[in-house]
Amino acid sequence: MIKKICAVLITLMIAQNSFANTLDKINSPQDLKKLPNKQMESLAEDIRAGILNRVNTIGGHLGPDLGIVEATIAMHYVFNSPKDKFIFDVSHQTYPHKMLTGRKSAFTDPLHHPEISGYSNPKESKHDHFILGHTSTSISLATGVAKARDFKGEKYNVIALIGDGSLSGGEAYEGLNNAAVLNSNFIIIVNDNEMSIAENQGGLYKNLRELRETKGQASNNIFKALGYDYYYVENGNNINDLIKAFQKVKDTNKPTVVHIHTLKGKGYKPAEENKEMYHYQLAGFMDNKKTDKKETYKSITADYILNNNSTLPITAATPGSFGFTPEFREKLKNRYTDVGIAEQDAVAYASGIAENGGKPIFCVASSFIQRAYDQLSQDLALNNSPATILVYGGGISNADMTHLGIFDIPLISNIPNIVYLSPTNKEEYLAMLDWSVNQKQYPVAIRVPTGDLVSTGIKDETDYSILNKFKLIEKGDKVAIIAAGNFFRLGKEVKEELRKQGINATLINPCYLTGVDEKLLNELKQNHKLVITLEDGCLDGGFGEKISRFYSNSDMKVLNFGAEKEFTDRVPLEELYKRYHLTKELITQDIMSNL
Amino acid sequence: MIKKICAVLITLMIAQNSFANTLDKINSPQDLKKLPNKQMESLAEDIRAGILNRVNTIGGHLGPDLGIVEATIAMHYVFNSPKDKFIFDVSHQTYPHKMLTGRKSAFTDPLHHPEISGYSNPKESKHDHFILGHTSTSISLATGVAKARDFKGEKYNVIALIGDGSLSGGEAYEGLNNAAVLNSNFIIIVNDNEMSIAENQGGLYKNLRELRETKGQASNNIFKALGYDYYYVENGNNINDLIKAFQKVKDTNKPTVVHIHTLKGKGYKPAEENKEMYHYQLAGFMDNKKTDKKETYKSITADYILNNNSTLPITAATPGSFGFTPEFREKLKNRYTDVGIAEQDAVAYASGIAENGGKPIFCVASSFIQRAYDQLSQDLALNNSPATILVYGGGISNADMTHLGIFDIPLISNIPNIVYLSPTNKEEYLAMLDWSVNQKQYPVAIRVPTGDLVSTGIKDETDYSILNKFKLIEKGDKVAIIAAGNFFRLGKEVKEELRKQGINATLINPCYLTGVDEKLLNELKQNHKLVITLEDGCLDGGFGEKISRFYSNSDMKVLNFGAEKEFTDRVPLEELYKRYHLTKELITQDIMSNL
Repeated sequence: MIKKICAVLITLMIAQNSFANTLDKINSPQDLKKLPNKQMESLAEDIRAGILNRVNTIGGHLGPDLGIVEATIAMHYVFNSPKDKFIFDVSHQTYPHKMLTGRKSAFTDPLHHPEISGYSNPKESKHDHFILGHTSTSISLATGVAKARDFKGEKYNVIALIGDGSLSGGEAYEGLNNAAVLNSNFIIIVNDNEMSIAENQGGLYKNLRELRETKGQASNNIFKALGYDYYYVENGNNINDLIKAFQKVKDTNKPTVVHIHTLKGKGYKPAEENKEMYHYQLAGFMDNKKTDKKETYKSITADYILNNNSTLPITAATPGSFGFTPEFREKLKNRYTDVGIAEQDAVAYASGIAENGGKPIFCVASSFIQRAYDQLSQDLALNNSPATILVYGGGISNADMTHLGIFDIPLISNIPNIVYLSPTNKEEYLAMLDWSVNQKQYPVAIRVPTGDLVSTGIKDETDYSILNKFKLIEKGDKVAIIAAGNFFRLGKEVKEELRKQGINATLINPCYLTGVDEKLLNELKQNHKLVITLEDGCLDGGFGEKISRFYSNSDMKVLNFGAEKEFTDRVPLEELYKRYHLTKELITQDIMSNL
Repeated sequence: MIKKICAVLITLMIAQNSFANTLDKINSPQDLKKLPNKQMESLAEDIRAGILNRVNTIGGHLGPDLGIVEATIAMHYVFNSPKDKFIFDVSHQTYPHKMLTGRKSAFTDPLHHPEISGYSNPKESKHDHFILGHTSTSISLATGVAKARDFKGEKYNVIALIGDGSLSGGEAYEGLNNAAVLNSNFIIIVNDNEMSIAENQGGLYKNLRELRETKGQASNNIFKALGYDYYYVENGNNINDLIKAFQKVKDTNKPTVVHIHTLKGKGYKPAEENKEMYHYQLAGFMDNKKTDKKETYKSITADYILNNNSTLPITAATPGSFGFTPEFREKLKNRYTDVGIAEQDAVAYASGIAENGGKPIFCVASSFIQRAYDQLSQDLALNNSPATILVYGGGISNADMTHLGIFDIPLISNIPNIVYLSPTNKEEYLAMLDWSVNQKQYPVAIRVPTGDLVSTGIKDETDYSILNKFKLIEKGDKVAIIAAGNFFRLGKEVKEELRKQGINATLINPCYLTGVDEKLLNELKQNHKLVITLEDGCLDGGFGEKISRFYSNSDMKVLNFGAEKEFTDRVPLEELYKRYHLTKELITQDIMSNL
């Protein structure tokens, strides 16, 4: 009900363009500095309306941005950006900053929404200093900025804003530890909204709570323990309190923490009340959405975990991404661990559980598993710990360049001992998952398919302990299509296209991304001229190159299809598929011209 | 002089086998528990003699092990291994543990030295629970062990021993943060020897100092801040004090830290006095070694850095590995940063410096750069920050399986934007380094050559900004040899071998590991039948596969030579070269049979 009323109010506001009254006057931080104090609140309201407008139109981060409005205003009021340098952690909470630094139309005018990304980007503005979207990086980056400043003998403030769960990441701590010994200006604003994406986890957050409860006076204080000067602002959504605090630390000559207590989702009731759900929202969230009850790879994973009482599921701060709702987590009871933003810990923790006889399942996004390469290699693979890693969202997409899912195959498939599986349908996925959970020989990663669930209706009885055994789906000749995971469907389509050209192609589902089926590949030599590989990820270091290498001293021709090695930024999928020749037509053309 | 006397004494002890008097009686922790208290000290002496004996015979970690003798005795006396589980961080300080758990002959008898590794390994003993050799992992691993224990309803102590610099690593902190909220038995022994490999860095170590100076009473206490019960032992080399402390925390039902203050190198005067130098020693260190003054890739790097005043060199706790002696570091003054064991911070910090106009050079071992994959990708590559990363020790070796240098090419070369260079001699290396430091377009990594320095005596004038331009060294026909970095020399040898077979092979130095020279590769098609690639690293995901992929739809045959995807453990180099066909004879055979 409240949600509905809010939605109506916002719609009205947008319609009347009423949100732009004060924001209208602000084209740069200079304008903000001239704004009469009494209009600050109204500016904050305008900014909030802008955030809601943008997110409701094209989706984006909501709660983090609503919570940081006042702090951003106060930062720009007190400090002099871009001379003073703000480095926002994750930068998913830079919407207010963007509105204050010349990019407000991307929030107020739907036509301009797509012009900017949801993260900071120096190409957008001189007020942004890094492209970043993964968490826990701001302090280290800012320490480097401060070091270069000091070495050049320059003077200005370097400010890292971190919070919303990011402080649990190891990189944040490494930065916190090292910035503490800078003998110069360095300010960390800790945005403590009591949340990560889900609840905050771990000892650090117990300490933050203790600090909040004592208004910053508790003798247990991790920041002071590390050597920081420390200030606490109880009402981190009060512009005047924030201005006072920032003025106090401005131009400080030593590492200083300003711990501000903010309300995530502030100003939009539903987001204040359900912080986790409103961390990020898709377009149209203000409208009543129908609950979609259809089966997905996420839902069947959740069901599998729920029904297998001996499994110990683990997430790193993003349970919602895998359909682990609060109700679902409740049902899992003590089986479930959310380690917070701490993928390194998650992998090592899973390895520890597996080595002691447990059955851990770490659910993680493709873009974030790369935060734990050394742990996959050393803590997991070297020990051959039979843990299960479920990699979600792997594949070419129109995502922001900070959140691509195309590097997990090069990353994981070249580590010894790990078995990386690429299921192509529901039954195969569940069989692989069940095999992985119950075997005791290998660390196993499974690339959870993306897109709509495909079901064969036939139970998969494959013995996955026979490693690198590809599945020969249809036997043909001349051309063989090895189509992995998400692209198996594309492989089938290509086979159909080739049939029109009179070619009865062989279709293979490789299942394994970590090795090749030498026997099958050798057999293909008898009556095939060309093998093509299809993978939904980066070609460099990927699966297809293993096939190319295998055939490199034979007469077999090979074509590898997949993504180029590049960071793409919100490029429409269709365009990428065209660029990489990933349509059935383009692939068939390439095949025909290579026969 | 002291060193010499000690050496003589130790030699005498070893000769008389006098060190084994008390140790003789100990074949398992059970025997230790029966040992009269007054013989504990003599056991400690025997263990020290064993450490010195082993390290002087085959090399290994010295200071960390000498410092942890008493704590290890006390741990085995109080707790019941293997039911109670010890997880040693890095496990480079497990020599005393190994001696007390049935492996003493590997320390007392040179014939048995090679039987065990310098790290923990479950295959060696039921008292070891993980293979590990990278730092900062113990707490996360132990948290997993404890979680599985609790889930199974079992009761015993889980103890992580961490220190000697490992606490600065992000994974340690992620673990520390998450273990803090375990509601059950969990003991962390913090071995505070005031050192990492070089001096400890950062705010955490300031706090440890404060705690030492106040005998654990300081109100700033990072462990208490995170929610741990906390105990301090001032004399961490006093067995009785340690036994008392461990008895106090044994069977605790909450996360507990025992902070013990130990002396690194204890009992061997030179190691006590020069902790950094004696962290690790090569065989024969007790004999007078001649100082080797010849030029090496390390020395020319150090010279370059010293002579280029605008460079900002960075190391992550292992400056000695790159020839950054204390005297050298002194000369660099404020240009130098050692971030401690914190590779993630180092990469992001370098990116921050580069983005703010500085010229950072991060020196790091191949085995450790993998601790910062996400930072290479997100903090560095995505921002195209023109930082320089020097990767040392990359290549196939007889190293322990925890310290292999064969994965850096797959790791780095498949990240967009980074330029990964593989110099083959002094002049080329210096030209690449100088180009990298002074350009502003790309993040650049350079694989510093291993082995003896090769000098052409001719200044390299190549313009390295023309990316992926391979060097055509000698033009021939039929066979082309693309020999990267360390293996360029091998490529030349193969060319000589082929000449004996009447083949005038083409020789190419690719210089770039991150891309291919399409023009040159296409030209080779005219009069070559076979291209071979040589790389000193893992083939899977490596450089050679890029060449195979390039030629995969042509008539050109390709053979990739390099290491297989496997963790090898102290395998002699000669054996590995034979296994992988990396001798001029085997390569030539393979070429001939493929022509």
